[in-house]
Amino acid sequence: MQNESTSAEAAAKTGTIKSAEIVTIGTEMLLGDLVDTNTAWLSSYLAPLGVAIYRHTTVGDNRQRIIAAILEAASRADLVITTGGLGPTSDDLTNECLALAAGREMVEREEAREHVDEMFRRFGRTPTPSNYKQALFPEGAELIPNPLGTAMGALMEIEGALVATFPGVPSEMKVMFEETLAPLVKERTDGAIVSRILHFTGIGESAIAEQVQDLLDASDPTVAPLASQGKVKLRITARAATPDEAEAKIEPVAEEILRRLGDYYFGVDSETIESALARLLEEKGATLALAESCTGGLLAKRLTDMAGSSAYFKEGLVTYSNDSKERLLGVPHDLLVEHGAVSEPVAKAMAEGARKLSDSDYALSVTGVAGPGGGTEEKPVGLVYVGLADGGETTVEKLNLSAWGRSREAIRERTANRAFDLLRRHLADGAAS
Amino acid sequence: MQNESTSAEAAAKTGTIKSAEIVTIGTEMLLGDLVDTNTAWLSSYLAPLGVAIYRHTTVGDNRQRIIAAILEAASRADLVITTGGLGPTSDDLTNECLALAAGREMVEREEAREHVDEMFRRFGRTPTPSNYKQALFPEGAELIPNPLGTAMGALMEIEGALVATFPGVPSEMKVMFEETLAPLVKERTDGAIVSRILHFTGIGESAIAEQVQDLLDASDPTVAPLASQGKVKLRITARAATPDEAEAKIEPVAEEILRRLGDYYFGVDSETIESALARLLEEKGATLALAESCTGGLLAKRLTDMAGSSAYFKEGLVTYSNDSKERLLGVPHDLLVEHGAVSEPVAKAMAEGARKLSDSDYALSVTGVAGPGGGTEEKPVGLVYVGLADGGETTVEKLNLSAWGRSREAIRERTANRAFDLLRRHLADGAAS
Repeated sequence: MQNESTSAEAAAKTGTIKSAEIVTIGTEMLLGDLVDTNTAWLSSYLAPLGVAIYRHTTVGDNRQRIIAAILEAASRADLVITTGGLGPTSDDLTNECLALAAGREMVEREEAREHVDEMFRRFGRTPTPSNYKQALFPEGAELIPNPLGTAMGALMEIEGALVATFPGVPSEMKVMFEETLAPLVKERTDGAIVSRILHFTGIGESAIAEQVQDLLDASDPTVAPLASQGKVKLRITARAATPDEAEAKIEPVAEEILRRLGDYYFGVDSETIESALARLLEEKGATLALAESCTGGLLAKRLTDMAGSSAYFKEGLVTYSNDSKERLLGVPHDLLVEHGAVSEPVAKAMAEGARKLSDSDYALSVTGVAGPGGGTEEKPVGLVYVGLADGGETTVEKLNLSAWGRSREAIRERTANRAFDLLRRHLADGAAS
Repeated sequence: MQNESTSAEAAAKTGTIKSAEIVTIGTEMLLGDLVDTNTAWLSSYLAPLGVAIYRHTTVGDNRQRIIAAILEAASRADLVITTGGLGPTSDDLTNECLALAAGREMVEREEAREHVDEMFRRFGRTPTPSNYKQALFPEGAELIPNPLGTAMGALMEIEGALVATFPGVPSEMKVMFEETLAPLVKERTDGAIVSRILHFTGIGESAIAEQVQDLLDASDPTVAPLASQGKVKLRITARAATPDEAEAKIEPVAEEILRRLGDYYFGVDSETIESALARLLEEKGATLALAESCTGGLLAKRLTDMAGSSAYFKEGLVTYSNDSKERLLGVPHDLLVEHGAVSEPVAKAMAEGARKLSDSDYALSVTGVAGPGGGTEEKPVGLVYVGLADGGETTVEKLNLSAWGRSREAIRERTANRAFDLLRRHLADGAAS
């Protein structure tokens, strides 16, 4: 008990947290069996608090390398966050390594043992002996409560840095971080780093860079470009004493960028093409239906990833077979025979059929060759038609995504971006006129 | 020119490649704006070649920190792979830092300049002056061709390690690695590390661990568990002189695991629940239709992520509104009024309606509350009904995913896993009887 209060005092004395490093622990990451998403989430949480993050490290389930990574990070940063390695199995070594790095013993903590029992009771299961491994912690560590799972985290001082351990399960790590560590970090940060991300589509990264090179060369705020799947982001980052002051430095730069590139702009920060589209549909009280062939439900999935999409999304038809296109959407049989499923007339008929069937204001259709097989000389992989029906003249855009040697996934995602953007521009133009 | 051959010779002399580290470069990763998937891909490629990967490091677009990360990795590993920072903008610093780390000058390479011109010609665009930054490389570096983009990579020896730079765009990095570095690594590896992953569902991680604790404690082959979204993987890893010998060590362990846990097993290595299901449907020549409400197209999207899914997937109906459920699937209006859309009778009617409409052998339906809003005391977030119609008695499973405080995304993904598994078990049981 004495150790605990000593540790708590030491942690309390750590002072301002200016820098952090994240150490991800798990052989599954080194073998490529799992993509680490925790680090990006933690980083995007810490950066706006003014905590500079200079390095992420991933090591496997190996005592020596875990200890080395924790000690190295602790020597460079004020705060070290580890994720992973808190499970009940024998390759879960994080808290043991924390004890070794700090020169402490592992001790069973009664509150952690009770927590394991309580969680198993709640889930209607019985703990096995190995589950009580999750009650062992470095002597003197503060425990981080886990409302969702059995693995509690530990918080202690090592080499002058505050070190916190979290489980690798994202939902557990997030709530534990938000409830315990985030409030502590917020109290001890000095100044703020604020970022705003402006999103563009229909223009390439280097063409954007040419237009705003003077801003990319500036250092406060900094402006950095990033391209993916037919979209380009510009991230404006400012550092100041308070978030408001940082925002005030960002504002004129954002305005200048939009003055130069406004034609290609579709949203800010976490906005996506579909969320920008959703906002416009909601503003107009308009409804949308989808008819998808090669995207196979991806457009519907992306629209319904957003909570509240039932306000504007009526239904989606994944008409993967020709029979479905005829039977559900009323695409004429002769049209399919004459032009093939991947053709402008079929995209048009699909959009019009979906709009009529669903009695929606708008319908988007997609038909194409997503690959990797199924391409011909006349209709290569990456040839896609996107249709937009609004009750007037139906628009069809022909996309050729083949020249870039893209994967099936990339072609499908890029197709969805283009389809959503087609309707987004249509609605935005209508609002302007 | 002399430098080039000197470097090539030095690289040639590097000898056996036993270990590698991956250094990811880009402030967007440190700010959490982008999740790094390249590292997992590279790791899963290198591990089976017998190259041990002990560490991944991510640093931002900062000269000092890039140089430090490259030199540290080069001091520990035989091979260092960097991704990112090869773009045309001023924050792309990787090759410059490679030159600084090696004590070389940056020089313009004619072949790289021609490559920039050639790529722009191919895409029908005109290079801007900043694009020729991508023709500058450390003196003496070997260039890594990029068939898909303007950014070539560099290969050179630093501190006795072979260091290779790749762009951050995954499609470009992958083809460059496969065509240039992978053959070189294959020639210089010593022995092989082979992994086999066995997938289970319907059983928890600690319950699995209890059943195979003796195997988890063994060291050759090693067995490690990993849980996610209602699924558990066991990864068996063996090291031997050749891949065949490693496979021979894995085989009896895999058999023993399946003897104990076969009831919960659904696939091996890259198999997913939906690919296991797809295999069974193809074997039977059977077809499937989908009727989705709360998953909003996710099931259709996941099925059609797989190339060739048109062989068994007929169509999907994303009936997000009650009106859609009535009009498209023929769910009786009274049923919706009496029981609500999220109910066992509606799940049953949706599955039967989709099967009849599409004339498929099987239909799966999903209706539930994915959250975060829309929950009530009677029908909380996470309550989901999954229906399976096969022309006989329709099965409906009630899922309660609410107790775990999961996100909308987690509830939707887990629902898809359970729905696919319902049909997979039905088909597998049918095959066994």
